[in-house]
Amino acid sequence: MPELISLHQCFGGQQRFYRHDSSAIGLPMRFSVFLPTHAEAGPVPVLFYLAGLTCTEETFMIKAGAQRFAQQHGLMLVTPDTSPRGAGLPGETDSWDFGAGAGFYLDATQEPWSRHYRMYSYIVDELFGLVTSELPGDPARAGIFGHSMGGHGALVLALRNPDKFRSVSAFAPIAHPVDCPWGHKAFGNYLGPDRETWKQYDATELMRTARQPFPGGILVDQGLADQFLEQQLRPEAFEAACRDAGQPLELRRHAGYDHGYYFISTFMEDHLAFHAQALGA
Amino acid sequence: MPELISLHQCFGGQQRFYRHDSSAIGLPMRFSVFLPTHAEAGPVPVLFYLAGLTCTEETFMIKAGAQRFAQQHGLMLVTPDTSPRGAGLPGETDSWDFGAGAGFYLDATQEPWSRHYRMYSYIVDELFGLVTSELPGDPARAGIFGHSMGGHGALVLALRNPDKFRSVSAFAPIAHPVDCPWGHKAFGNYLGPDRETWKQYDATELMRTARQPFPGGILVDQGLADQFLEQQLRPEAFEAACRDAGQPLELRRHAGYDHGYYFISTFMEDHLAFHAQALGA
Repeated sequence: MPELISLHQCFGGQQRFYRHDSSAIGLPMRFSVFLPTHAEAGPVPVLFYLAGLTCTEETFMIKAGAQRFAQQHGLMLVTPDTSPRGAGLPGETDSWDFGAGAGFYLDATQEPWSRHYRMYSYIVDELFGLVTSELPGDPARAGIFGHSMGGHGALVLALRNPDKFRSVSAFAPIAHPVDCPWGHKAFGNYLGPDRETWKQYDATELMRTARQPFPGGILVDQGLADQFLEQQLRPEAFEAACRDAGQPLELRRHAGYDHGYYFISTFMEDHLAFHAQALGA
Repeated sequence: MPELISLHQCFGGQQRFYRHDSSAIGLPMRFSVFLPTHAEAGPVPVLFYLAGLTCTEETFMIKAGAQRFAQQHGLMLVTPDTSPRGAGLPGETDSWDFGAGAGFYLDATQEPWSRHYRMYSYIVDELFGLVTSELPGDPARAGIFGHSMGGHGALVLALRNPDKFRSVSAFAPIAHPVDCPWGHKAFGNYLGPDRETWKQYDATELMRTARQPFPGGILVDQGLADQFLEQQLRPEAFEAACRDAGQPLELRRHAGYDHGYYFISTFMEDHLAFHAQALGA
């Protein structure tokens, strides 16, 4: 059982922060959970949120304003940290877009990162198992969403595990990381120079080889005043891949909105309604 | 005109951060503003929020989830910083409950604080004037609310200036600072040993000598799991003073809620509806 660090009443439900010894990561990890009152009566649909570069397990719960709608729909929310912490590797904390706070939701294969930087397995296997066994998440009704690096993570985890994640959406995702500076830096260091190995962590590449559409469609919101839009995010590449694959995608472009949580909070209500409907919440 | 530091689209409106040279404080000050779309057509009701110990002009705008309802009601939101910054006084940053981040919304009379620590005059005169002349706040439709130290500030500023602030509410206010450790420390240092001078900055004392009730009543929310409730906040003292003065007060006690923004965000919708109704928004 994970250790409960703190608990705060919030919109009638409970905002909780946990710490546990992760076997996938090999270090202590933290995560946050919002439990709606519905969870007192039994398992509830569970929605994972993956945060962006520099964030922690706290950021979303503090800034996004999601708990109001999670309580309304009876959705449990789960947010992991964005990387291992305290691995003590050289260069781990030198940049804000690689290493600590920038795990990119993949399993690193290159030394020295491969020992601890295993966020993909951590979330898909360990954390998913934990919140559906030790906590009241219903494993048959799980969805996932995220922002920026976490939007990339949400799309990749869902497309590779549609049996586990029944719904997926994203805010300003890094939609084609094999072809942007953030992705080049992270994938090159975590996965090595063979770019073929990168494709398993690229939503656009996964969509290009998808055997069948992701059920229920995909919702993506993108601000048009986002400073990272052209160079880093590449939603148009993902959009084209979805079109070619026959994948229903609602990509909404919002004039004036930037990359931050003032944008995210504005459209949070829509995303929770989207997942609630898909998960039968 | 204050300098616009940043602007973020949010719920259709605009989240702005400003910096200006304050004459009341004698130093540069920062404040934040949310402008609903209604402000494009002319002056709108304006609601000041005063934050608590350690907070800045950003905290409320990031954590409280107020913009959604400010846009719905057409309310402009304004939040100042919680103290002067960079005055360079000895001991200014030694404690979290005095000095920087802890201005207590008063005009200090004691050296060395009296030169810059003048948050009362800053807000009531300078900032009020600025947001109703340089920005589209309607001076005839202004309200004020706040949290903890800022709840104290909101009650004091409103009770002393009912002609300027037509509505007032608070989350977990320091309701009787002349009789609690935070107040003793702050008032003793800012105002000196004569406790008679403290009473002009104490909501309970002001209510005890009020000549007439504050129009429209007062709304206060208090969590019963608040770790500061018994020793620091003293809402029961303010409640008794209101009762004796014939002041309508809705003091809502909420089981399970603590002192933080998970509590505040839960009841934000109610407070904005309260002010919107009082201000004719």
